Amino acid sequence: MSSSVQRKRIRKSPEARRAEIVATAARVALTEGLECVTLRRVAEELAVRPGLISHYFPSAEDLVAEAFSVAALGELDALLPAERPDGTPAQYLARYFALSSGEAYDDISRLWINARHLSRYRPVLRERVTRMELASDDRLEELIRDGVDRGEFRTDDPRSAAIQILVVLDGLGAHANSDRTDRPPAVTRLAVSTAERALALPHGTLDAPGATGTLPLTFSPADAAEAAVTAGTTGATPA
Amino acid sequence: MSSSVQRKRIRKSPEARRAEIVATAARVALTEGLECVTLRRVAEELAVRPGLISHYFPSAEDLVAEAFSVAALGELDALLPAERPDGTPAQYLARYFALSSGEAYDDISRLWINARHLSRYRPVLRERVTRMELASDDRLEELIRDGVDRGEFRTDDPRSAAIQILVVLDGLGAHANSDRTDRPPAVTRLAVSTAERALALPHGTLDAPGATGTLPLTFSPADAAEAAVTAGTTGATPA
Repeated sequence: MSSSVQRKRIRKSPEARRAEIVATAARVALTEGLECVTLRRVAEELAVRPGLISHYFPSAEDLVAEAFSVAALGELDALLPAERPDGTPAQYLARYFALSSGEAYDDISRLWINARHLSRYRPVLRERVTRMELASDDRLEELIRDGVDRGEFRTDDPRSAAIQILVVLDGLGAHANSDRTDRPPAVTRLAVSTAERALALPHGTLDAPGATGTLPLTFSPADAAEAAVTAGTTGATPA
Repeated sequence: MSSSVQRKRIRKSPEARRAEIVATAARVALTEGLECVTLRRVAEELAVRPGLISHYFPSAEDLVAEAFSVAALGELDALLPAERPDGTPAQYLARYFALSSGEAYDDISRLWINARHLSRYRPVLRERVTRMELASDDRLEELIRDGVDRGEFRTDDPRSAAIQILVVLDGLGAHANSDRTDRPPAVTRLAVSTAERALALPHGTLDAPGATGTLPLTFSPADAAEAAVTAGTTGATPA
């Protein structure tokens, strides 16, 4: 390491340093798994002493939980943004389904399976998983309410419709680590058809690309996590 | 250990010894997780040398895969039996849903999340997970075909209907390690309503207890795994 790089690192503000640690931990979580998120590993990635990581995250449990939260929140903000200035609720919902069945989403599905499994043993992570599940329920419910208000969707119970759709997406994502080549089209499309039924929409209303308008259909889990770090809205208390 | 116990153990046939090892590994897998299934741990449980376990399972990977297969096959045979002499296909399907939402099923859901996560890193286990997923698809498809033949169900594509139902059950089970107290009734009932729609059945046709006839509504994952060991049908090649 050159001394100019060292000087540059030393000058970082605590906020910037913490953000760098969390972004690195989230990247490791997404690509290799939450088990690989350790103080030592993140220190190696950043070429700093492990003591610097433990200054910001005294417990590795907190760093694992924060890595998951940031990756999951980044996914939610990228796939189901809270502000939707560029299209209708139906277009944003169709985009959500298109992105949730793409290959880039497999990293996210694997992360959720990973986190749901480890939640069995790790209470700090479990609390974050529950919080992110509720955040997803809330976000999709808001989109559905918006669509009902505009007369696009019809349902008596937007929250129930939201959770039904998310349960089906969880079921489809549960197979991200196994072979899914034999899936019939009705299975691949199950989240879309569940939404069409729950929201009283004609068959095909939510099928991409026709239904997504001019919304962009790209998604990078790593970039989304990075954006969530910058936004800093996981609800964690910085040390 | 008394010498009479030792003598008794030494007299066991290789088949009985192997079955005992697998049943023990499956119990550890169900109650504590697949990560706890090690040659050493299973040897401790049976009060034998680790060398005896490695004689039957030279690789711990194979023991983990066999523990999963036996627990998953036991679950399948108990919840969706291949022979159904005591009721109609609709009654057996209603019983399947009743048992799949009970508390005893949480151990099974946790095992599947566990196996699907570890499949990411362990190819031997991944192959077994894929095989058990296909076995579940096949078993439910057979029940649906039987129901169609008898005029109870109506569908053009029994396999697609089977996989749709199983995806929803996977989605509901994905939350076995987190809080699910806020679920609306339409979510709790989502597997039933998916089946009713896929099989052209009126609402309520598959709701327990009315729909299950005289079929017993009990299930023990540990007993089911034990029965699968005795039946010996996981397709593994004994050492």
